[in-house]
Amino acid sequence: MNKFRPFEVHDIRFPTSRSLDGSDAMNRDPDYSAAYVVVRASSGEVGHSFVFTIGRGNEVSVAALRAVEGLVVGLDVDEALSDMGAFGRLLTHDSQLRWLGPEKGVVHMAIGAVINAVWDLFARRRGLPLWRLLASLSPAEVAGLVDFRHLSDTLAYDEAVDILERASAGKDERERRLLGEGYPAYTTSPGWLGYSDEKMLALSGAALAQGFGHLKLKVGAGMDSDARRVKLVRDFVGQGVRISVDANQAWEVAEAIEAVERLARYGIEWVEEPTSPDDIAGHLKVARAVAPVKVATGEHIANRVVFKQLLSSQAIGVCQIDACRVAGVNENVAILLLAAKFGVPVCPHAGGVGLCEVVQHLAMFDYVAVSGSMEGRWIEYVDHLHEHFANPVRVEGGRYRPPLRPGGGAEMLTGTLEDFAFPGGVVWR
Amino acid sequence: MNKFRPFEVHDIRFPTSRSLDGSDAMNRDPDYSAAYVVVRASSGEVGHSFVFTIGRGNEVSVAALRAVEGLVVGLDVDEALSDMGAFGRLLTHDSQLRWLGPEKGVVHMAIGAVINAVWDLFARRRGLPLWRLLASLSPAEVAGLVDFRHLSDTLAYDEAVDILERASAGKDERERRLLGEGYPAYTTSPGWLGYSDEKMLALSGAALAQGFGHLKLKVGAGMDSDARRVKLVRDFVGQGVRISVDANQAWEVAEAIEAVERLARYGIEWVEEPTSPDDIAGHLKVARAVAPVKVATGEHIANRVVFKQLLSSQAIGVCQIDACRVAGVNENVAILLLAAKFGVPVCPHAGGVGLCEVVQHLAMFDYVAVSGSMEGRWIEYVDHLHEHFANPVRVEGGRYRPPLRPGGGAEMLTGTLEDFAFPGGVVWR
Repeated sequence: MNKFRPFEVHDIRFPTSRSLDGSDAMNRDPDYSAAYVVVRASSGEVGHSFVFTIGRGNEVSVAALRAVEGLVVGLDVDEALSDMGAFGRLLTHDSQLRWLGPEKGVVHMAIGAVINAVWDLFARRRGLPLWRLLASLSPAEVAGLVDFRHLSDTLAYDEAVDILERASAGKDERERRLLGEGYPAYTTSPGWLGYSDEKMLALSGAALAQGFGHLKLKVGAGMDSDARRVKLVRDFVGQGVRISVDANQAWEVAEAIEAVERLARYGIEWVEEPTSPDDIAGHLKVARAVAPVKVATGEHIANRVVFKQLLSSQAIGVCQIDACRVAGVNENVAILLLAAKFGVPVCPHAGGVGLCEVVQHLAMFDYVAVSGSMEGRWIEYVDHLHEHFANPVRVEGGRYRPPLRPGGGAEMLTGTLEDFAFPGGVVWR
Repeated sequence: MNKFRPFEVHDIRFPTSRSLDGSDAMNRDPDYSAAYVVVRASSGEVGHSFVFTIGRGNEVSVAALRAVEGLVVGLDVDEALSDMGAFGRLLTHDSQLRWLGPEKGVVHMAIGAVINAVWDLFARRRGLPLWRLLASLSPAEVAGLVDFRHLSDTLAYDEAVDILERASAGKDERERRLLGEGYPAYTTSPGWLGYSDEKMLALSGAALAQGFGHLKLKVGAGMDSDARRVKLVRDFVGQGVRISVDANQAWEVAEAIEAVERLARYGIEWVEEPTSPDDIAGHLKVARAVAPVKVATGEHIANRVVFKQLLSSQAIGVCQIDACRVAGVNENVAILLLAAKFGVPVCPHAGGVGLCEVVQHLAMFDYVAVSGSMEGRWIEYVDHLHEHFANPVRVEGGRYRPPLRPGGGAEMLTGTLEDFAFPGGVVWR
């Protein structure tokens, strides 16, 4: 029998705070980090994944991966792959671990990483990139991945199958189009809050030259400063380029409304994380007040139940799935289906370390097999730390080129796992 | 200078699953556990607290306490005690740790335990039980404990002070009344899902004999079984005793409504955790459908922002604060103020291990200095594991007797910390 063997777990940290890459209103000095896991089968097969964090506490995620390991080691690998929905629910429904969320925070994120690692193993076995493996599944197989517990008042199994069956027509053509044209990207590289005006404008110019037509700027540093920076970039890039802004939860509800009303005069596509990610009612108040500017959120949304409320109430107009926050591919499939039901475009959160490499698979699966559209959709792109990955993303002309190699994209280079190990690696010693 | 020294941290577990004490629809075999922390000052002062968990994963909470330790060791103790609000925000606002929630799950619970441990130290220094220390603070001092971030659209500092000032009148008289009469309790001891009918009825009879007038039964084991058990107890105790039911999140929204409509014929005070604790909209649907039966929740509500929405929308009619879920005394003060603003009675979650010992202080503070009322309010009581505490609760005639010894109630006996240490203690070897 082919059984899961003990995990390999690494505490990997990048000293990104030294250059203020990734600085925003709430995350002033992140050290992008990964609680990295390699799932091993007795057959010799492997699957790679990680929990993304921003530094301190990465060791807590490592401890959580070890806790989840206890539920997985010894299970039959083929049985897990034959019903990935059941495998995911085995982890998220564990009655004792569940107390530590439930379905949120450190333990939930670790469960997500383990589910993603097993998907990586699965895709390698099939010799497919993850997005193609997912797109090859039948509507019933995809719907079977979803945990409908606490969703069924809004989305039940039959409706999920209907959504997927409607999207079945044209799948092959969309796959061809994706392979030919790629998937649209926007870039956050110019807009970190810790950057000077000069650096922001130089990077904005570079982004336009690279073919990006959509930039995102961090805000939340004070109303005047925010307005000045957004105006600077708008004047520099002209009217033909989209600009979104991201407050990273810095505002109160009333502040968010006031700020967006002021920034809207410069032409804003969406405002991201205007306030607490737990405040569904607050997001709805902001959304109603600032329309037609859209409200976007997702990177800190704990699970499908919160997304259910944000989407069904129209509190968000842009759904920003994250590869490392929820219970892996399975829960993200639930969120894609909810977004499709309510007609809200999915624009994944990426950046950090490895998020681009992983989340692109979900956006491409969404295009081919769920929403069927790339209209009003962009995957976030930040050009940091890709050199640490076995299969780094390719973004050309402002578009993600679909990954073609087998797996889910999370595998880091062996040298990176050694050099950036915390606290023993050469970078930290 | 009096500085915080390194923490003492213990992984303590009780093998409660062996007797199915604590079994319910979602938590079938809990081993009540504590990630236990002793905060030490260079003066020799100590403060005790813990994160309550139900077994597996307790070691992840231990790792989280160590992560929080890194923010606290070396700080000035007197400065922390002089502004406990600022001390709490220092922990919850840490930009890197915050990513792992934000403000939810393992890290948030660990921060809560550390804040509670410092309150324990503070109360010992003053020679007061925690409830009395809190009740001795001025309205401005109490409001200063609250993190108003992401609350201000619903509750701002000035309104919090107003609520507390209105409650100032009569504080002394309420304190006398509390000392004389105690605080009402209800008991969950008879109703665990793993108990036989015989055991349930025998324990119900014992509870009545002990003076309890309010029992809670676990449900969610199937509609027929639930109805049969509730009817059995109703027939046994008669109409003069209150019965609440607790589904521990087992139901979908529609199921919850159907179940409560059926159980309501036996006379139900409240239905607890009818569905996902993250589903504010779902709770509201249930609340509207099952009135006048009240909806109760709280033990799994992650933070004040979720409580803000549940309370302001009237999705809950009973607010069940928990001593170990949110960011300690400080965040529970915010929740007490929100409940007072919306006129929702606070009935704390307790049981587990040590939750009764700790949460009674918050309910008594609420009575003396915030809501000013014991009407429609009961503290949960379960008669397990009190023998492990230095100052076990005293519940007599169905009422909690106010604790008089200094501190917050969390201190466990030294022998317990040795014998129940996991995995090395004598109970686990």
